Amino acid sequence: MKERPVTRATLGRLPQYLQLLRKLRDENVQNISATAIAGRLSLGEVQVRKDLCAVSGAGRPRIGYEISGLIESLEKILRYDKCTSAVLVGAGKLGRALLEYDEFEEYGVKIIAAFDCNEHILKKGGSTEILPLNNFESFCKTNNVQIGIITVGAGSAQEVCDLMIKNGISAIWNFAPCKLNISENVILKQEKLALSLAHLNNQLLRI
Amino acid sequence: MKERPVTRATLGRLPQYLQLLRKLRDENVQNISATAIAGRLSLGEVQVRKDLCAVSGAGRPRIGYEISGLIESLEKILRYDKCTSAVLVGAGKLGRALLEYDEFEEYGVKIIAAFDCNEHILKKGGSTEILPLNNFESFCKTNNVQIGIITVGAGSAQEVCDLMIKNGISAIWNFAPCKLNISENVILKQEKLALSLAHLNNQLLRI
Repeated sequence: MKERPVTRATLGRLPQYLQLLRKLRDENVQNISATAIAGRLSLGEVQVRKDLCAVSGAGRPRIGYEISGLIESLEKILRYDKCTSAVLVGAGKLGRALLEYDEFEEYGVKIIAAFDCNEHILKKGGSTEILPLNNFESFCKTNNVQIGIITVGAGSAQEVCDLMIKNGISAIWNFAPCKLNISENVILKQEKLALSLAHLNNQLLRI
Repeated sequence: MKERPVTRATLGRLPQYLQLLRKLRDENVQNISATAIAGRLSLGEVQVRKDLCAVSGAGRPRIGYEISGLIESLEKILRYDKCTSAVLVGAGKLGRALLEYDEFEEYGVKIIAAFDCNEHILKKGGSTEILPLNNFESFCKTNNVQIGIITVGAGSAQEVCDLMIKNGISAIWNFAPCKLNISENVILKQEKLALSLAHLNNQLLRI
C-alpha cells in the first residue's frame, strides 16, 4: 500500500467505502468497479477513483478493484488493525460529550481515559473512566497514549498541553480557545467551533 | 465595501485584526501599514494583505489602511452591527457545552434559545433559556431566527431539521452524525468532529 497523505475529505468517505465493501464481501462478490461503487454510494465516479487511488492505487481495467485487498488497505488507513490511544483532559460538558461519541473508533482512535481535577465528576467503571488528574503521569507510563484531547478552559490549556507533551503525547487536539506553544515535533490540531458557525453565518448573509 | 466570499481561515483571523485596530484607534493612531499589522500579530505580511483585501480592499501606498474605515468593514463582516439569531435543538452535553461558548458572539451569532423534549433539563432565566420543544414554532414566529443548530442524536436529526426549515430557518449547523435531506435554498454545515481526530491520527502515523 502506498503511504500518501490522505485529505480530510477523503478520510471522511472511507468508512462508507469500507461498509459497502464488507457487505459485498459477505455476498461473495470479488471485484467491483469505481462506477459501481459511485452508483451505490451516490458519489461522483471521479471522486471515488481519486479516493481509492490515495488509499490503495488504481483499479484494473475491466476488472475493477479486488474487494478483499481494498478492505485491507482501508482498514489499515483507518487503523482498524491497531487503534491509536487517546486521553482527554477536562471532563466538563464538552469533554463528556466527546466521550459519548461512538464515531471516533470508526476512524481508529479510542479515548481510553479522561482526566479532571474536579473530584465531583470523577467516575470509575463506566465506558470511559474519568480519573483524577494526579494519576495522569502514571497512567501515561503504563499505557501507550499518543493523542491528547484538551477540553479545559483557555486558562489551563497550556499547562495541560505541557503535561501531555512531558508524558510522551505527540499529537494534541485542542478545544480551548487559545494558542498553544508546542515543540516542533508535536502535532497540534486547533478546533475552532466558532469558526464553523461564523462561516455558516457569512454564507447566509451572501444569499 | 466589496461583498466577496471570505474564507474560513480569513474569518478566523478577523477578530484579531479588529482587536488590534480598536486598540490603535483608542491611542489616536489613524493609519497603519500591513507590515506593522503583521508584526504586531505575528502573522505573515502577504497573509495580512490578502485578508484585509477580502474585507475592505487594499491599503494605500506609504499611508496604509485608514483605521476607522477598516474597523467599520470588519465590524460589518463580523456582523457586530447586527447579530444573527440562532437556536439550538438538543440540550444534552454537547448542546449545553455549545451554549457556554462565548466565542460565537465574537463572530456575530447569538444563540437566543435552546430547545429539548426532555423536561428534566429545561431551564428558565439562565443566560440562555432551554425551552420545551413544543414552544419551538411560536418562538420562531415571534423571533427572527435564521440559524438552527442540531445537537440531537442521529435518529431525530431529520425531524428536527424539517421542523427548523418549516419555521423559516435557512441555515443549519448539524452535529448529528447523519446526512440530512434539505431543500436547495437552505445552507447546511455538517460538523464532523470525528474527522478532525481522524485527520490528526493520520498525520501522527506519517511522522
